[in-house]
Amino acid sequence: MKNTFGNALTLTIFGESHGPVVGATVDGLAPGIGIREDAIRSALALRRPSGSISTARREQDEFEILSGVFEGRSTGTPFTVIVRNADTKSADYLRGIARPGHADLTAHYKYHGFEDYRGGGHFSGRLTAALTAVCAPLSEALRKRGIRVGTHISSLAGIYDRPFGDTEADFETLSSLPFPVLDPDAAEAMKAKIREAAEAGDSVGGVLETVVTGVPAGLGEPFFDSVESELAHAMFSIPAVKGVEFGAGFGFADMKGSEANDPIRVNPQQNGGPPFITSSNKNGGINGGITNGMPILMRIAVKPTPSLGIPQESVDFLAGKNAEHPGGGRHDPAIVHRARSAVNGLTAFVIADLLTLRFGTDWLAEG
Amino acid sequence: MKNTFGNALTLTIFGESHGPVVGATVDGLAPGIGIREDAIRSALALRRPSGSISTARREQDEFEILSGVFEGRSTGTPFTVIVRNADTKSADYLRGIARPGHADLTAHYKYHGFEDYRGGGHFSGRLTAALTAVCAPLSEALRKRGIRVGTHISSLAGIYDRPFGDTEADFETLSSLPFPVLDPDAAEAMKAKIREAAEAGDSVGGVLETVVTGVPAGLGEPFFDSVESELAHAMFSIPAVKGVEFGAGFGFADMKGSEANDPIRVNPQQNGGPPFITSSNKNGGINGGITNGMPILMRIAVKPTPSLGIPQESVDFLAGKNAEHPGGGRHDPAIVHRARSAVNGLTAFVIADLLTLRFGTDWLAEG
Amino acid sequence: MKNTFGNALTLTIFGESHGPVVGATVDGLAPGIGIREDAIRSALALRRPSGSISTARREQDEFEILSGVFEGRSTGTPFTVIVRNADTKSADYLRGIARPGHADLTAHYKYHGFEDYRGGGHFSGRLTAALTAVCAPLSEALRKRGIRVGTHISSLAGIYDRPFGDTEADFETLSSLPFPVLDPDAAEAMKAKIREAAEAGDSVGGVLETVVTGVPAGLGEPFFDSVESELAHAMFSIPAVKGVEFGAGFGFADMKGSEANDPIRVNPQQNGGPPFITSSNKNGGINGGITNGMPILMRIAVKPTPSLGIPQESVDFLAGKNAEHPGGGRHDPAIVHRARSAVNGLTAFVIADLLTLRFGTDWLAEG
Amino acid sequence: MKNTFGNALTLTIFGESHGPVVGATVDGLAPGIGIREDAIRSALALRRPSGSISTARREQDEFEILSGVFEGRSTGTPFTVIVRNADTKSADYLRGIARPGHADLTAHYKYHGFEDYRGGGHFSGRLTAALTAVCAPLSEALRKRGIRVGTHISSLAGIYDRPFGDTEADFETLSSLPFPVLDPDAAEAMKAKIREAAEAGDSVGGVLETVVTGVPAGLGEPFFDSVESELAHAMFSIPAVKGVEFGAGFGFADMKGSEANDPIRVNPQQNGGPPFITSSNKNGGINGGITNGMPILMRIAVKPTPSLGIPQESVDFLAGKNAEHPGGGRHDPAIVHRARSAVNGLTAFVIADLLTLRFGTDWLAEG
Repeated sequence: MKNTFGNALTLTIFGESHGPVVGATVDGLAPGIGIREDAIRSALALRRPSGSISTARREQDEFEILSGVFEGRSTGTPFTVIVRNADTKSADYLRGIARPGHADLTAHYKYHGFEDYRGGGHFSGRLTAALTAVCAPLSEALRKRGIRVGTHISSLAGIYDRPFGDTEADFETLSSLPFPVLDPDAAEAMKAKIREAAEAGDSVGGVLETVVTGVPAGLGEPFFDSVESELAHAMFSIPAVKGVEFGAGFGFADMKGSEANDPIRVNPQQNGGPPFITSSNKNGGINGGITNGMPILMRIAVKPTPSLGIPQESVDFLAGKNAEHPGGGRHDPAIVHRARSAVNGLTAFVIADLLTLRFGTDWLAEG
Repeated sequence: MKNTFGNALTLTIFGESHGPVVGATVDGLAPGIGIREDAIRSALALRRPSGSISTARREQDEFEILSGVFEGRSTGTPFTVIVRNADTKSADYLRGIARPGHADLTAHYKYHGFEDYRGGGHFSGRLTAALTAVCAPLSEALRKRGIRVGTHISSLAGIYDRPFGDTEADFETLSSLPFPVLDPDAAEAMKAKIREAAEAGDSVGGVLETVVTGVPAGLGEPFFDSVESELAHAMFSIPAVKGVEFGAGFGFADMKGSEANDPIRVNPQQNGGPPFITSSNKNGGINGGITNGMPILMRIAVKPTPSLGIPQESVDFLAGKNAEHPGGGRHDPAIVHRARSAVNGLTAFVIADLLTLRFGTDWLAEG
Repeated sequence: MKNTFGNALTLTIFGESHGPVVGATVDGLAPGIGIREDAIRSALALRRPSGSISTARREQDEFEILSGVFEGRSTGTPFTVIVRNADTKSADYLRGIARPGHADLTAHYKYHGFEDYRGGGHFSGRLTAALTAVCAPLSEALRKRGIRVGTHISSLAGIYDRPFGDTEADFETLSSLPFPVLDPDAAEAMKAKIREAAEAGDSVGGVLETVVTGVPAGLGEPFFDSVESELAHAMFSIPAVKGVEFGAGFGFADMKGSEANDPIRVNPQQNGGPPFITSSNKNGGINGGITNGMPILMRIAVKPTPSLGIPQESVDFLAGKNAEHPGGGRHDPAIVHRARSAVNGLTAFVIADLLTLRFGTDWLAEG
Repeated sequence: MKNTFGNALTLTIFGESHGPVVGATVDGLAPGIGIREDAIRSALALRRPSGSISTARREQDEFEILSGVFEGRSTGTPFTVIVRNADTKSADYLRGIARPGHADLTAHYKYHGFEDYRGGGHFSGRLTAALTAVCAPLSEALRKRGIRVGTHISSLAGIYDRPFGDTEADFETLSSLPFPVLDPDAAEAMKAKIREAAEAGDSVGGVLETVVTGVPAGLGEPFFDSVESELAHAMFSIPAVKGVEFGAGFGFADMKGSEANDPIRVNPQQNGGPPFITSSNKNGGINGGITNGMPILMRIAVKPTPSLGIPQESVDFLAGKNAEHPGGGRHDPAIVHRARSAVNGLTAFVIADLLTLRFGTDWLAEG
């Protein structure tokens, strides 16, 4: 359904990069969930471009809660947040000359020239600010129920982070890092790669790895709404995502069944957790589209930012002829780290939606 | 929405592996589409297990069209097909001892013991027979509009097929091959791997690669219903799928933006096709979630069949204790080739849905 | 979404009057609900034409459960029931000459001549057999949770039934009456009117009144999914329904606010029921689109059967000229009493859906 | 889906009476539709309380278009409008003492005390300002395609307007009347009734009658999404609506089939309009849930405003005891005329949705 996503919870997104706002509405939220402006502010801060590895666009991310909150708690009615756009330089954008790798040309095919072409319009990564803001309270509510969502850059331009240990410590570390890499040396090496690309007017891609712990066993709505289907649907809506895998993912292609199957055992820790665990987790916490109580493991391929500082072969689609896109303007030489906020927000949303569908509209508020 | 998927078209699936039938309903179909029983029969034949590389279960796939067809054409009302189950040996299935890698335990978490455990119940690959049957006429209707969907095994157990050339010839070849591999030597090598695994009581996984040509530019409903989101949602509903990527997919992680962006050019062939093309297709025919008129390229990771002939560590979840699953029973040592039918069927469905949403409920019937 | 309806539960319908079957699928059902074939058989029996006041078409209503049931209980996966069509006399139906008041012409506008015109095709009241069958177990499940749904004919051709007292006794009486009228004298008078119309080749309409008791307070999903919106949506899908009102309904137009408001009082009966009650029930158990714990009261206007035994002015839409429809063939001189089954079934479905959305997918099975 | 409604088009609503804004988003809109701020301003002006027959609350209805518009035209991406709330006197509202006839108590049941109780919160008629604003451009777009939507008060407190002639003149008259009554004498008599009720601290209800002309034949998506189902679903989401009927509606109950069926004839006017017409219109332009090209006729029962100036029996639900609601505060002695704006807006939305589903996402923009 286009700009609304979800089942028992729904998420509606609106706005353009250079319009007045980007915004989003979550509907179906349990009443009584704490909505802290600070949580939204912190989530937006982690997403914000900063320092030498980001666009020069200064996003203030001034946000306003428009509805669904009373006396600091969710009312159970639609929760809408808008984030004002600022420091937009629309004159930087050329009408008619498609930026390769972007949606300029495809938006033109679809919207016949009525699209807001400035800064990618509705297809801009800017919209993830709205997702980040509106989903921040969901992440907090999940955490209160023992569910944590965390994401690091597992690789970027050939540099690999150390494994994400799905421990409390790793979640905490990531939750305060604007550049979400666990190994400080790897982080520095990745940043060096980004700066190097930036200097060449180029950009780099990478892989994000998300871990979700504490999810109750038995969530998911196969046949069509497997946990993988729901998460992948959400991830592929984030601009620049081109691959999603769970557990061993594409690595399964070269495995035998005897390697791919996770042996099941009685959970020796009787306090908390599911009654049964697996002694490996190649299936990423999901069997038959339903959670098994083990951590959910997801990896997401993010392509290099299509915006470059160098000229590229393209067309002037208004004039109908070949043309060179000159490059330049402000842009991010990497968006992998910034995509993390949308990945975490949407993952929290999907888990909250499946929980609500399973346990009803009050579950998230309890406890 | 669980067992219903889609927007302007919807697909509803029902049935269990050892129940009376598996079936599916497509709603929203244009009136006047030819519905040939032969097309359904052929599609089911390609999916059917056969020869030395498959389960010993003999699926007759006797199907019945229950609704939505009159005088050989779609009426525009719900089109339902059922496929009767036969040759089921329910006694082969042990209640309570979870098969690792399968949904036995997770279904138990979700359905509290009321699940039909025989043969995986609703989570069985058997349900793809229903998808295959109900989507076969959609594929035919698309072909009449110049849209082709084809899938080959790009790799299996370390053996690689030659590239899928997205030519008419390759589509034709694949459309009649039960084991969809373009290079006959690669096919034999893959089958040898499958037989080798089978003899060891083991199984193998692989990667499917799907190409869709002739899709009009401008399809897709971002933000949330990008073409990638819709296709991935559908693919991850197919049992055993654990990864989906488009174009260069995870390969983007190690590219520069200057390599990742596809240069855009005026289409020199003025008859047919989009006005602009790209001189490479690393984005797999999709930019910003919208088709650009180039072939759609998708790759799907299929894990090895979890059913094995050898014993595996597991639990008796009814007794709450560790137990060994003895293995044995009839099973497929590989399902990659058989998953192809569901992949093609669901891909056709998603494209038809996006076309219907864009051009209205009559479009598919015209021409 | 056309032939699928609902939120947490969905109901999909398929089939044509003279096709092989009519059928329906309920998805999202809690696992563990008892599914008795006898309950389905009884519900179908109440809907079946019989005696002098009905069509001569003998519907055997042989049904088959295709999926979603294992060992007599719902599995939690899609529950599909089909009812075979029999004793169809397709030759009775004239192609091209529209029956006034029916969907013949509008179906032609919509489906361009591909519609199955025989017996109204997908627009036939015959489809309510599928609804009746698939919803019967839902009604049983609700009853086990203390929720009762009952419907009587409050008026027909100027004859009025006595008020429906929403007592256990009245529900019981109605549940076994094929002609659901509480006052036996009124029933006889109504039947006389039906026979009189039948003899004249004519037909009569009427008003159904539905009462639902035991519904927990706090159900409903305004803004758009008020209880009234959901029930009315369902009711207006039943062929021949042309009006729906709740509580005082159109009677509110001539009331003062001081008459229309129901005074609220503490519920003196502490065991069971909501904490507060109203001393009148002009709002029909619903305020602001949400249940208040009082009985839900709904009235439904059913137009006279459009099929008549006498000639009517019409057109031959294939020939594009005025023509007379000769009348004749088998038909019901009244369908008010038969519509009751669909009304009860869909009402049970809507209540079950709202309960599931509110309390989760297990709620209906508990207790 | 609660606060989102629609199929190919969706409408999402958010906001509370005394929160910062009420707002709404339409998604799926064709690109290129003219969006005139003046059209929105005029629509809001017709809805605004004024003069002696309305609440003393002065609603400025300052609105802001947040997204989906570029250079005065729809972009095809979500179109969001917010209307700021002003002149709110929250202190007027008593926490815990339920206003009879309102949602105070039912909202408390549903939201457990987290609801924004001020002024009815999300259940206030104030939300119709958002609907009115966001749907105004849809009405304009429909008018350009020859489709008109108009609504008058057919009766109020026993006073009847003259019939709505569905002529251009009547549509024009209604489009500029804040109190939409065609007969000036009836208008004065109705206003006198309203003032009389107001003086007594009481309120009145009424019936709205809506006519839609120019709708193409063949719209509607039965089985479940009949035109009646879709319109009724929308109407029953408007606060205070308790009955909806089409054509003869409840009047069918006392008709014979021979009176109820509309004779069909070849349309003598070959220029424009459907090929066939009916010589009466008792079915209100809809047969079998599908439009037949005749005007759509709908009547809507609106109950008297529940807010009164006089004391009423009620409860203090926080204290759990009987209590008197003192009455008073600002309120409308009638909302029938003000509900007209929401009725027209939602009717336009439903028609636009069905057109988009049928003819694709560009149809509304063409011509």
